[in-house]
Amino acid sequence: MKNYADLWLGYRKIEDPGDTSLLKKFCISGVAESDKVVVNAVSELRTGLKAMLGIEPDIVFGSAGAPVSINSGKDMQDAEEYTVSIRDEGLAIDSKSGAGILYGVFDILRNVACGGDVRSIYASEKKVRPSNPLRMLNHWDNMSGDIERGYSGNSFFFENDDIVINERTEDYARLIASVGINGVVINNVNVKNAASYLITDRFFDKVAKLGEIFAGYGIRLFLSLNYASTIEIGGLDSADPLDEKVIAWWKTKMAEIFEKIPTLGGFLVKADSEGRPGPFTYGRTQADGANMLADIVKEHGGIIIWRCFVYNCKQDWRDRKTDRARAGYDNFMPMDGDYHDNVILQIKNGPMDFQIREPISPLLGGLKKTNQMLEVQIAQEYTGHQIDLCYLIPEFKEILGFRTYCSEDRDTVADIISGETFGSRFSGIAAVTNTGNDFNWTGNYLAGANLFGFGRLAFDTELSSEQIAEEFVRMTISRDDAVVKEIVGILLPSREIYERYTSPLGIGWMVTPGVHYGCSVDGYEYDRWGTYHRADHLGIGVDRSDKGTGYAMQYNEPNASVYNDPEKCPDELVLFFHHLPYTHKLHSGKTVIQHIYDTHFEGYEEARELAKKWSTLKGKVDDEIFENVSERFERQLANAREWCDQVNSYFFRKSGIPDEKGRQIW
Amino acid sequence: MKNYADLWLGYRKIEDPGDTSLLKKFCISGVAESDKVVVNAVSELRTGLKAMLGIEPDIVFGSAGAPVSINSGKDMQDAEEYTVSIRDEGLAIDSKSGAGILYGVFDILRNVACGGDVRSIYASEKKVRPSNPLRMLNHWDNMSGDIERGYSGNSFFFENDDIVINERTEDYARLIASVGINGVVINNVNVKNAASYLITDRFFDKVAKLGEIFAGYGIRLFLSLNYASTIEIGGLDSADPLDEKVIAWWKTKMAEIFEKIPTLGGFLVKADSEGRPGPFTYGRTQADGANMLADIVKEHGGIIIWRCFVYNCKQDWRDRKTDRARAGYDNFMPMDGDYHDNVILQIKNGPMDFQIREPISPLLGGLKKTNQMLEVQIAQEYTGHQIDLCYLIPEFKEILGFRTYCSEDRDTVADIISGETFGSRFSGIAAVTNTGNDFNWTGNYLAGANLFGFGRLAFDTELSSEQIAEEFVRMTISRDDAVVKEIVGILLPSREIYERYTSPLGIGWMVTPGVHYGCSVDGYEYDRWGTYHRADHLGIGVDRSDKGTGYAMQYNEPNASVYNDPEKCPDELVLFFHHLPYTHKLHSGKTVIQHIYDTHFEGYEEARELAKKWSTLKGKVDDEIFENVSERFERQLANAREWCDQVNSYFFRKSGIPDEKGRQIW
Repeated sequence: MKNYADLWLGYRKIEDPGDTSLLKKFCISGVAESDKVVVNAVSELRTGLKAMLGIEPDIVFGSAGAPVSINSGKDMQDAEEYTVSIRDEGLAIDSKSGAGILYGVFDILRNVACGGDVRSIYASEKKVRPSNPLRMLNHWDNMSGDIERGYSGNSFFFENDDIVINERTEDYARLIASVGINGVVINNVNVKNAASYLITDRFFDKVAKLGEIFAGYGIRLFLSLNYASTIEIGGLDSADPLDEKVIAWWKTKMAEIFEKIPTLGGFLVKADSEGRPGPFTYGRTQADGANMLADIVKEHGGIIIWRCFVYNCKQDWRDRKTDRARAGYDNFMPMDGDYHDNVILQIKNGPMDFQIREPISPLLGGLKKTNQMLEVQIAQEYTGHQIDLCYLIPEFKEILGFRTYCSEDRDTVADIISGETFGSRFSGIAAVTNTGNDFNWTGNYLAGANLFGFGRLAFDTELSSEQIAEEFVRMTISRDDAVVKEIVGILLPSREIYERYTSPLGIGWMVTPGVHYGCSVDGYEYDRWGTYHRADHLGIGVDRSDKGTGYAMQYNEPNASVYNDPEKCPDELVLFFHHLPYTHKLHSGKTVIQHIYDTHFEGYEEARELAKKWSTLKGKVDDEIFENVSERFERQLANAREWCDQVNSYFFRKSGIPDEKGRQIW
Repeated sequence: MKNYADLWLGYRKIEDPGDTSLLKKFCISGVAESDKVVVNAVSELRTGLKAMLGIEPDIVFGSAGAPVSINSGKDMQDAEEYTVSIRDEGLAIDSKSGAGILYGVFDILRNVACGGDVRSIYASEKKVRPSNPLRMLNHWDNMSGDIERGYSGNSFFFENDDIVINERTEDYARLIASVGINGVVINNVNVKNAASYLITDRFFDKVAKLGEIFAGYGIRLFLSLNYASTIEIGGLDSADPLDEKVIAWWKTKMAEIFEKIPTLGGFLVKADSEGRPGPFTYGRTQADGANMLADIVKEHGGIIIWRCFVYNCKQDWRDRKTDRARAGYDNFMPMDGDYHDNVILQIKNGPMDFQIREPISPLLGGLKKTNQMLEVQIAQEYTGHQIDLCYLIPEFKEILGFRTYCSEDRDTVADIISGETFGSRFSGIAAVTNTGNDFNWTGNYLAGANLFGFGRLAFDTELSSEQIAEEFVRMTISRDDAVVKEIVGILLPSREIYERYTSPLGIGWMVTPGVHYGCSVDGYEYDRWGTYHRADHLGIGVDRSDKGTGYAMQYNEPNASVYNDPEKCPDELVLFFHHLPYTHKLHSGKTVIQHIYDTHFEGYEEARELAKKWSTLKGKVDDEIFENVSERFERQLANAREWCDQVNSYFFRKSGIPDEKGRQIW
């Protein structure tokens, strides 16, 4: 028996399915029947329909088009677009690629699994084009088997410095393909142990095998690369991107890699970041580094995804001029236009690091001549470690919908990363993933909604948070309308609740250092990471206005003016941009200090409400799911209480201002 | 070549020794020439004199007394007492035990090594009786090879879950015997991994071998014991000290242990402490637990040393009634008189845990019918990790000299642990040791002064801090008077300097959680360890008076009244006992807040002065020593600056009260 859950591919039997006649006949067109992805798609279709409805459909194949050549993100979208329609009292799936056929199959299976009426859903032809060309998951899995920021067991790719390939590998590919993921980076961006670099002969065969498995589901394999490989495994004394010896070494190495791993899509690189080596070491620009590698992989069809997480991680806390928030823009904007066309800059959603609330990185909307990819994090590093519930799709929706004012129209983050705004050659979205070898993949069963939801949203940025949550619940837990409503009602507000009992007003970083779970208001305040709240007995916040670090001015207008002015700045970000007295009145009409007290008391109560709602589901959902989530809620409440009491006590002890409502502060 | 330093047994050549005639002839009396310890003593004497003076002395033996039987601490002191005198133009060493002879030899060698004039030193007979019967080192070495709170490499006893015995083992025995240590616990009090318990057949031979090596230097071997061994290796389902099955298992096990390890002195036990199992689990008292084991080991001549470090380590920080400081007294006093006479309670010097400044544990002077042993820590867990210089002997002198008012006279801690005050059957002093397999044993060369000094002081509590420091420097580093004066001048104030730039006025605990190095003012404030400063915008400190937790009342009068009253309480402990406004005037005339600012600025400056003094010694001391200590000072200054700035900033930001002198606060 398998030792892991099926999640949303459980295909539970549908007792009273209604009219299923359309599901007995399928016509698949556009791609050859023998295409590996099509073979997998057909197999999935048969498995799902058999399990849910006992149907063994007839499947016929229409004409196959000529193989499409993929030379850009737009080509990818063209190929992966699919159509589902009713034809000859059966369903027809058309696409130019196996992946598109597979997505069509999953479209149908999802609608069936959710209990939808297929005849009405596909009454008029449904054509779906992926919103983003690249839709990737980044694993931070180390070859030792542990996962950096992993909260759901160990890696299912690596164990004891070797690669693991088993039944779970393919099921993982199925799972993520089913929500539209088309790229995976399997190893941690912090590639530290030279002995375990994946780009040596020791691992080629197994990496190639992984690549084949993924390719069978329309997923491209990528690897994280150590920028200093020339030194650490190449025996050179330099990693200078302009050094001929360095270039020559990479040329030979890349030819070898792409020969041995023909399915490889390219590389993800974290350079000059948090102690990682990079071009700065040699007085070169980030563009020099990225372009060197990109030029070499180009002939092999590869791309270089270059992370923009470059900042001074040895800041002196006394220094109020240096601002980590500024660093991405300062380091990458000056070279806008210099990056070659198979380089993609991967930009974290905020300027800091995946806090529960941050402004959008000003690089998004700043860069206009550079391929861009948005990076979000579904691994709940700062958002509750998959112990606390934090359904992140509403946050991602906010990010995608943010207007950057970088052009007359189509100026949202979603527009930029889709490639529409600037006609970028490549673009997309990536998530640091939340999976591990736990039975249920994501530690907390409900954290599976973030994995599911990220994929769904990446594929179709128009979907609502609610629709995604409902799909997840119906497919994974229950089709009972009342149960679905209850669980969706638990998921939807969970991110705002988490925000309320943790860091107020955009300030962030009040977490236990290193661990990043649990409260420590001053934990990072006197440290070197550039993550300060600057609270004293009068007020709190970081002045990032034009009178402070000037970060607010990195935005296009009118965003810059809005953020720059404490009277205009949205409440939820006001302490990110301004140092304000505790007595400052927010737009809500509350003072800063009263907002802190209120949100913390309320956030804890709201978390209790969520747990209480969940407790009513005993017997209505699978016992294992019920117990798993209940146990997490128990730990969440302990955590939420600590956050509430510690934050309130900290600010009461510091400000001396009592709670208006006279509640217990310690 | 050896890969470790000789420390104070380097026996550097003396260039211009003066009159050495007395050192050519020795008469040793009281113990048989064949006694293993005497053999080692003679060998040491020959080695030392040859190396320092080129002398190969004649050594004759007087009559040997009957072997003494040791049945109490007083017996040990009687046996280990030695006399050195001038006889027949040579030196005579008399003692009833080999250990006493060995101590006599080291007395002579020390005086020679320090450059003393032997003829005047021994002009009148020098009779030395050890102040304390038991003078022990506690190693917190784990069998994996790492050391809990070790700052000087890994264990030299253990490696990869096995025991290491090599040349260094014997040299370690020599080193510690030379300063008078007569007992060693080789393994961590936290005995966690059942597979590596030392009381199983797997290790008996090697432990016995270690015991023999130590015995050759008059040192008894002790082991830390896991109280739950009956469960974890005995296969029983209980560790209840009153359970017959438990008792029977221990009887058999102890008979086996003492048969296999005949030199064994007994056991050290940490029970019911910080997650360790113990009698409380079964509703039994600490006395029940200790007595059960003690009764069983009695027939084998063994003793049970039972640690008093029992407190609630899962305190709620909101709870101001529970007081960790009270716990030792509350848990152990009610059974005073119940502990059997081969049980010794081992009591940490303070009620908390080795902070740079704590009051003396009220158990010392509280317990009157119980064998007691003082526990101090030379491993610099909270006192700078052997990076920062902190010569601890002045602190130990304060502890030993503390008047407990437990009797009319002889009421100091030194009196109690010597056995004098209450005529205790066993008593003494133990230090958690600071050694590891680093080249120089203690990480920082100057931290060797704490190892040296602890032994010297344990043997003779009348010695001054200065004399001990001078001996250490002369024997280990240089006999040059100017150099000696400079280094002694660096050592002596170092503890008070460390105190000044770290935690003010006895408050303690402002360290980085877990690590215990570096500043984190709020690091433990909202945690479960009972270690709070309770600072708010008005004041700081813990009310342990009779209006607070009542801890102050655990002392005998007049100590209780002094500590209970903020006007009488010594400044250096005032925040340990009282919560006071920042504006409270200390005896020094300064306010609390100004004291914080002043001591922190001064402490950092003073640390810089120490480093500067050391820098003048380049070329005057061995290069390796110079570089080692210089490198540590560099790190100390970085640490001291962080402490200074973080503490001052924290309290300025919290109180809003500016520094009178207008210095830079961040």
